[in-house]
Amino acid sequence: MTHRQPLLQDIHGPEDLQRLSYAELKVLASEIRSLIVSTVSRNGGHLASNLGAVELTIALHRVFDSPHDKLVFDVGHQCYTHKILTGRAASFETLRRSGGISGFPKKDESPHDAFDTGHASTSISAALGLLAGEALSGGSGRVVALIGDGALTGGLAYEALSHAGQLDLPLVVILNDNKMSISPNVGGLSKYLSRLSMKSKYQSIRRGIDRLVKHFPFFGPLIYDVMIRVKKGIKALFYTDNFFVDLGFEYVGPIEGHNLPVLEQVLKDVKKLGKPVVVHVITRKGKGYAFAEDDPGHYHGVSSFSVEDGLVEPGSAPSFTTVFSEALSALARKDSRIVAVTAAMEKGTGLGPFKAEFPERFFDVGIAEEHAVTFSAGLAARGLRPVAAIYSTFMQRAADQLFHDAALQRIPVIFAVERDGLVGDDGETHQGIFDLALFRQVPGMTILAPAGRAELESMLAYAAELSSPAIIRYPKAACPAGHESFALPLEKGKGVFVREKGGKALIAFTGSLFSQALEAAALLENEGIDADLYNLRFIKPIDEEYLVSILSRYETVLFAEDGIRSGGIGEYAAALALSRRLSTLVCGQGVPDTFAGLGRRDELLARYGLDAQGLARAVTALCPRPGLRLLSKAVPE
Amino acid sequence: MTHRQPLLQDIHGPEDLQRLSYAELKVLASEIRSLIVSTVSRNGGHLASNLGAVELTIALHRVFDSPHDKLVFDVGHQCYTHKILTGRAASFETLRRSGGISGFPKKDESPHDAFDTGHASTSISAALGLLAGEALSGGSGRVVALIGDGALTGGLAYEALSHAGQLDLPLVVILNDNKMSISPNVGGLSKYLSRLSMKSKYQSIRRGIDRLVKHFPFFGPLIYDVMIRVKKGIKALFYTDNFFVDLGFEYVGPIEGHNLPVLEQVLKDVKKLGKPVVVHVITRKGKGYAFAEDDPGHYHGVSSFSVEDGLVEPGSAPSFTTVFSEALSALARKDSRIVAVTAAMEKGTGLGPFKAEFPERFFDVGIAEEHAVTFSAGLAARGLRPVAAIYSTFMQRAADQLFHDAALQRIPVIFAVERDGLVGDDGETHQGIFDLALFRQVPGMTILAPAGRAELESMLAYAAELSSPAIIRYPKAACPAGHESFALPLEKGKGVFVREKGGKALIAFTGSLFSQALEAAALLENEGIDADLYNLRFIKPIDEEYLVSILSRYETVLFAEDGIRSGGIGEYAAALALSRRLSTLVCGQGVPDTFAGLGRRDELLARYGLDAQGLARAVTALCPRPGLRLLSKAVPE
Repeated sequence: MTHRQPLLQDIHGPEDLQRLSYAELKVLASEIRSLIVSTVSRNGGHLASNLGAVELTIALHRVFDSPHDKLVFDVGHQCYTHKILTGRAASFETLRRSGGISGFPKKDESPHDAFDTGHASTSISAALGLLAGEALSGGSGRVVALIGDGALTGGLAYEALSHAGQLDLPLVVILNDNKMSISPNVGGLSKYLSRLSMKSKYQSIRRGIDRLVKHFPFFGPLIYDVMIRVKKGIKALFYTDNFFVDLGFEYVGPIEGHNLPVLEQVLKDVKKLGKPVVVHVITRKGKGYAFAEDDPGHYHGVSSFSVEDGLVEPGSAPSFTTVFSEALSALARKDSRIVAVTAAMEKGTGLGPFKAEFPERFFDVGIAEEHAVTFSAGLAARGLRPVAAIYSTFMQRAADQLFHDAALQRIPVIFAVERDGLVGDDGETHQGIFDLALFRQVPGMTILAPAGRAELESMLAYAAELSSPAIIRYPKAACPAGHESFALPLEKGKGVFVREKGGKALIAFTGSLFSQALEAAALLENEGIDADLYNLRFIKPIDEEYLVSILSRYETVLFAEDGIRSGGIGEYAAALALSRRLSTLVCGQGVPDTFAGLGRRDELLARYGLDAQGLARAVTALCPRPGLRLLSKAVPE
Repeated sequence: MTHRQPLLQDIHGPEDLQRLSYAELKVLASEIRSLIVSTVSRNGGHLASNLGAVELTIALHRVFDSPHDKLVFDVGHQCYTHKILTGRAASFETLRRSGGISGFPKKDESPHDAFDTGHASTSISAALGLLAGEALSGGSGRVVALIGDGALTGGLAYEALSHAGQLDLPLVVILNDNKMSISPNVGGLSKYLSRLSMKSKYQSIRRGIDRLVKHFPFFGPLIYDVMIRVKKGIKALFYTDNFFVDLGFEYVGPIEGHNLPVLEQVLKDVKKLGKPVVVHVITRKGKGYAFAEDDPGHYHGVSSFSVEDGLVEPGSAPSFTTVFSEALSALARKDSRIVAVTAAMEKGTGLGPFKAEFPERFFDVGIAEEHAVTFSAGLAARGLRPVAAIYSTFMQRAADQLFHDAALQRIPVIFAVERDGLVGDDGETHQGIFDLALFRQVPGMTILAPAGRAELESMLAYAAELSSPAIIRYPKAACPAGHESFALPLEKGKGVFVREKGGKALIAFTGSLFSQALEAAALLENEGIDADLYNLRFIKPIDEEYLVSILSRYETVLFAEDGIRSGGIGEYAAALALSRRLSTLVCGQGVPDTFAGLGRRDELLARYGLDAQGLARAVTALCPRPGLRLLSKAVPE
């Protein structure tokens, strides 16, 4: 924190907000925005959504009494102001750094973080549970769920709304409506919210309030109370007969989300209600930072950038995502059956160019991974070849749809599972370490893991010719190009040798660990160990006879996988070796029984022994020789 | 088919419906009901929902042109009339029998089955995909999704509705509203649908139509057309300003769902619309069979029963479900933190007695497994100990919620995972073979598999004292009682010996295979093989040193697991044995890489070598001796 934040430095908890005037709060909001922009510019993070929620979060903390009352932030990427106001301003500069402040709510970090979030659409559900528990326990605490219009498209949010309407507990749902999810929001609900905001009578009421407020440039709470007594404003904001009312909620709104006095008064009124209520607040994503206001999608989640010109530093090498993007468009030019499906991640999955070239073959279903998959199954059942590009961590949301709607019916949906394995910077909620074990067990699935550009291209073409579903999984990392093995033809169930010098040790690896394996072999060579390298390519199916023939040629084989060890390819291979009575020592190297936490991808790979040094150490541990320097480091567990 | 079905025997496809008069169709409906009741009384199946959808299905097949037009049945358990009308009347008596007609739609069974279903809430999503594919391919086929009010509480249905409202394709959604899911329907949406049905102006319109119709006791299409020309009826049924309209649909209804002429006319009108439309049809579950009309919940899905008195034969021994039910209530009497959560499966999960005794501690969230889990996480975060009782197959729907909302935060939700492993009679969509591999990989999970009554009781008590989430998984089967090993104290990560005679072979098994393992040991003894038996109890965590000490005492160990082999405990144990350089031959016996199909549980166990004979065969194959009779049967793959 710098000297440019005179008010913020005296805010050590929400209670410190109470003694500030509205004029001072306005200055405080500005100080908070500065802190967020400067921190995110250095550390990366979610910018636009947090800038839009500053006043709303201040108002919530002035009206509700955290942690006695509980605030549950959906997704959690709009919690920065909350963190700053609840004793974490001084340490905020460590945001998203290993060992620092998480970019998402964490119960372990503060009692003010009531429930951990990261994935979308969970807040109403969790808040309802917290409130039902409070009621059963005889407590008096209130619970507020803060959810964006984007996350409201997720089915879980709707399930929770419907249940809350039935339970009739005084749940407060704040709908932070900024007309955006990560991409501009889509779907019938989004259109509906727009209509709701635009209805003329609502507008006139809001104008009425704004006019009154303008007469008092430095209005205090007292003057605002006078306004309230006019009884024209807030009371008329309660309406019946809309989507939320249909489900059993009171509805208040829409409210101007950057006007603190109005927000506070509405929240105070709402707090008195004994019923579930939705408060519909209109905010501007990126508010207060011109570059982000103009292009909030670009500044949704960013790497470090320059505060002055807003320029995000470009990555050095083409990523797997970029290569996928190009390969998909190229394939779609030749194959008219190819269509693309995303769940609000057009930018993150690299589908922008596809959308631009084939707008009618592109579907953004909103934050709704379940529907994305079942909808894709429908498309494929009609003869198309949908490519559903979904982050690994979000594919967990659609596990049953992959099992039940695609795989069980042998419907050829292609899943481009992006950000698999260890994922940098977003922490444990966004790791992609489970997909391998999750989907390896699915009968009839094909799971492909490209190591480089030409492989990703040929795997996409291969998957498009299958009559059953396929996953192509790749990390958020630079995509290697140019290795001669990438261009070798793809054979069902078989991998390729990347290095074959007749050594006694073999490293068999999933594609995303190509560079690490290559470097490990070089390190081992320096130690006098010849390790061959085998790129698995296929996680499933595996040509077992072929794999057995390979395994049997080595004394030791290390299976390196970019995912959790339990249920992974290493366990499979060990069981195979044992059942065939091979004398080969087969071991797996993967993430141990833990949710991998915060860190850069290279840090995480090193933490779990999946970097070059870690792989080399593991191999040397399997073939022990006296006096090896690599063994001086402990083998990671 | 019998001689009492003169009309039905001439129906070989939907086209044969066109030549029948309404009077004949009424007789046909009655014949169909007889066939359904008599077949389900013999084979078991879904009764009430199918009896309620007879006229609706006839009307759909008269108005739409299947298979050019596509009908997608949600859940699928209301597809019996559809199957009977599309060439499967003669074979309908094989319903749910091994090799017979499936109780759910199957694309492989008939071109009239457009999309396979089984789990709830998928139909709108899949139908939208089929329709978008049809549009992109330049086809003219229409697509109809038929969904119950119960399945509409599932978030996936809502995600699809919102997307359909945006795509604006002429999707037809038939809301078959019978005020029931499997239990009486709950939630804000359900209340809303009731209000929609009860609004007086709708009622008066319906009465108007009914009155007109009554003037013409044997009205034909012509007379009905006259009625339509009055222009008072159907047109006025289109309303704006409700939940569905908010999402971008036209809304028609509510329609009396057992009145064929009205249904047909509405569907014809709807077919002309170029927009997405919801047709709200009111039906009576169990219609036409008095016992089922009076207690549709009881006749939702039944075993065989007597047609005359409606009595379902009781099972012989107490099931795991019954034992769980009793144990949960007993625990709740002692521990006020215990609450129970179900997703519309109060009866199936045995929570009825708990609800009766602790109504305020019981939550039925509707068909909404995702919310059930995240809501439970909220309850637990507030200090309660929720027990979420969910079928194994439906837990797939909440995988991410278990990962992200419970396990990642180490929140002590107890999952009673019911119908795990091989499940009889419902076929591949309802198998519980994936949960073991699915959740074994989750860091910090506890997974317990009771073999009998006392174990289930002690595991529930054990789980309630944990400060992290736990799964207790058990099959739909009789629950053994009385074996002395059940009462041995539960030790973290350790199993118990059920038989320990110092043999060279060991069968280590998951709890649900207790009886099979016990019998296998007896068979093996007859063959001169002493096999010890080890009940794993803990699938996770495993006390590895303890397990290694056990494994190392045997020449061969067979891990028998009631789930898919891939990613299971057998692979884990083999990898463990190999990494510890044990000389023990460790092999897994489980379901191979296939979706297990239709059959009784005992048939399925035998099919995959998990019955006593199969286990004994597997052990003898591992310790081969000349001349063993058991080896004459092939080891199943």
